[in-house]
Amino acid sequence: MNVVVVGSVALDSVETPYGKVENALGGSAVYFSVSASYFTRVGVVAVIGRDFPEEHLTFLKNRTIDLGGITREEGLTFHWKGKYSGDLNEAETLDTQLNVFETFRPHIPDEYREAPIVFLANIDPELQHTVLKQVKRPRLTICDTMNFWIDGKLDQLKETIQQVDILIINEGEARLLSQESNLIKAYRQIASYGPETLVVKQGSNGALLFTPSSIFSAPAYLLDTISDPTGAGDCFAGGFTGYLATVNTVTEHELRKAVIYGSVMASFNVEDFSLGRLKTLTFDEVEKRFASFKQLTQF
Amino acid sequence: MNVVVVGSVALDSVETPYGKVENALGGSAVYFSVSASYFTRVGVVAVIGRDFPEEHLTFLKNRTIDLGGITREEGLTFHWKGKYSGDLNEAETLDTQLNVFETFRPHIPDEYREAPIVFLANIDPELQHTVLKQVKRPRLTICDTMNFWIDGKLDQLKETIQQVDILIINEGEARLLSQESNLIKAYRQIASYGPETLVVKQGSNGALLFTPSSIFSAPAYLLDTISDPTGAGDCFAGGFTGYLATVNTVTEHELRKAVIYGSVMASFNVEDFSLGRLKTLTFDEVEKRFASFKQLTQF
Repeated sequence: MNVVVVGSVALDSVETPYGKVENALGGSAVYFSVSASYFTRVGVVAVIGRDFPEEHLTFLKNRTIDLGGITREEGLTFHWKGKYSGDLNEAETLDTQLNVFETFRPHIPDEYREAPIVFLANIDPELQHTVLKQVKRPRLTICDTMNFWIDGKLDQLKETIQQVDILIINEGEARLLSQESNLIKAYRQIASYGPETLVVKQGSNGALLFTPSSIFSAPAYLLDTISDPTGAGDCFAGGFTGYLATVNTVTEHELRKAVIYGSVMASFNVEDFSLGRLKTLTFDEVEKRFASFKQLTQF
Repeated sequence: MNVVVVGSVALDSVETPYGKVENALGGSAVYFSVSASYFTRVGVVAVIGRDFPEEHLTFLKNRTIDLGGITREEGLTFHWKGKYSGDLNEAETLDTQLNVFETFRPHIPDEYREAPIVFLANIDPELQHTVLKQVKRPRLTICDTMNFWIDGKLDQLKETIQQVDILIINEGEARLLSQESNLIKAYRQIASYGPETLVVKQGSNGALLFTPSSIFSAPAYLLDTISDPTGAGDCFAGGFTGYLATVNTVTEHELRKAVIYGSVMASFNVEDFSLGRLKTLTFDEVEKRFASFKQLTQF
C-alpha cells in the first residue's frame, strides 16, 4: 500500500444548473482514491451502510483500490444532498444524514500501518488525530480540513496539523485558519502551526503552492461547461498525493508537478456528475491535459 | 510616436487600510503612459485644469512622455476621491468632480495621427469613436471600458469595439458585456463583436489572454502588502501595450509576454500610493520581476 486515505464514502444527491443525480457515488475517500488510483495503489479506511450498492465497490476494486479498510455497518450510508447555482463556486447543503458515519472511528488495518503516505480527508480533527496515532511514521502526511472544524474544533485541529507535512485547503479556509487576509502572511502563520508546505485551492482560479523556498501559481483549466464541482477538491488531493507517491524525493519541482496533476484530475472530475467522468478517463487523457496545462502557462 | 493614449489626467484622493493621499497624481492616461514609457515613446491626449501642478508635467516629461496632446483649460482638473477596504479588490467612490473632463473632446495632434498603436483608456465610447476617426489605420488598436458604459452606452460601445483589435477588461466587465458567466463563452461572444484578442484582468488572481488559437493564464504576483490598487489596470495596459510596441510581429508568444509585462507593471504600481512606486522603479527591476513571474509558474 503506497497511500492510505481516511475519509467518507457517501451517496450524494446533487443538483446543478446542468442536471441532477440521486444517491450517486460520492464521499471524500472515494473521489480521492479514484483520482489517486491513476498513479499509485491506494487503501481506503471508511465506513459504509447496509444500503451501499455492490456495483460501487466493484468499480473501486476495478480501479485496483484496496478496500480492506472499509467496514460495513448495520445502518445507512452517509448521505449528502446539495445544490449549486450561479457560478457553481459554492454548494448549498440541503440535507446531511450522517448515518453510520456518525459513529465512525477509523481503524487502520495492520497492512496499512506502514504506508509511506497518509491522506487525512476532511473529517473531525480528533479522528484525524487517532489515525496519526495508529500509523508508523509515514514519509508524508497530507491533510484537508474545512471551516466547520476551524470554527468548532480549532485546538484539536491545530494538534493534528502540527504533525502534518502538507495542508491542502481552500482560500477562505486558509484565511480563516490563519486570521490573515493576505495569503503570504496566511502561509507564514499556518507554517508556524506545523505544515511547511501549504496548498491553497482557489476553485475556478487555480491553486497556489507555498513552500519555505518559493511560491508556485497553478492556473485553472478553463472549461466551457462545468457540470458538477462536487469532489473537485478531493480529486485534486488524489492527483497531488498519487503523483507524489511515484517520486523518490519530494522536491520543489515534484511538488509543483503534483499540484498540476491534482488540477488535471479536478478539471476532469467537474466535467460530469458524481464519478461519471473518472469512470471513463484514461491515463493517456491525464497526460494530455497535463501537457495542456504547460501550454496554458508558457510564455 | 509609437503609442498614443487617450484618457484622463486626474488628481486623486485615495484612502486604503495602509494610508491615504490627497490630490495625488492619477488618471488612466497617466498610469498608462508612465507604465508604457518603460518600453516605448508615448504621446498623451488628455485635458488638465488650471490647478494641475507643474511638477507632475515635469515628471511625465522626464519619463520621455510626449505631452503635445494635453490641453490646459480654464476650469479645475478632474478629481476622484475613493476608498478601498477589506481585500482592496473594489473601490468605493466617495466623490467625482469631472470639471474640465466633462467637456473633453479628444483632439489628436497631427504628429500623433500615424502612430502605429492607439490605446483608448476607459472613457465615453462615443469619445473613443471620435479618436478612431482621427487616426490613420493604426497597426493595433487596444481598448478598455467599464461597467458604467456597458450598462449605459452599449450600442455606442459596440460600435467602438467593432474596430478594436484587443479589448482589455476585468472579469466582471467581460461577463456583463457578453452576458455569459463562463469565460470561454464570454470570449466567443466578445470576439463576435470585433476584437479577436481579449485580455481579462482578474485582480489578485492574475489575468487571462484569449486569442482564436489559445488561452493563456497569467498568475498574479503575490505581495505581502498592497498599499493602493488605484491605476493597476492602466499600468497593466501600459506594460502590455508598451511591450507590444517593441516587437516586429504581434505573435501569440509576444502577446503572452506582453500580458506578463503588464502584470509586472501593475504589481509594482500597487506597492505604493499614486505613482509613488513608478517614480523610483528601474527597468532592471522590471526585468527581474519578469523573471520572477517565470519562476512563479514553471513546472
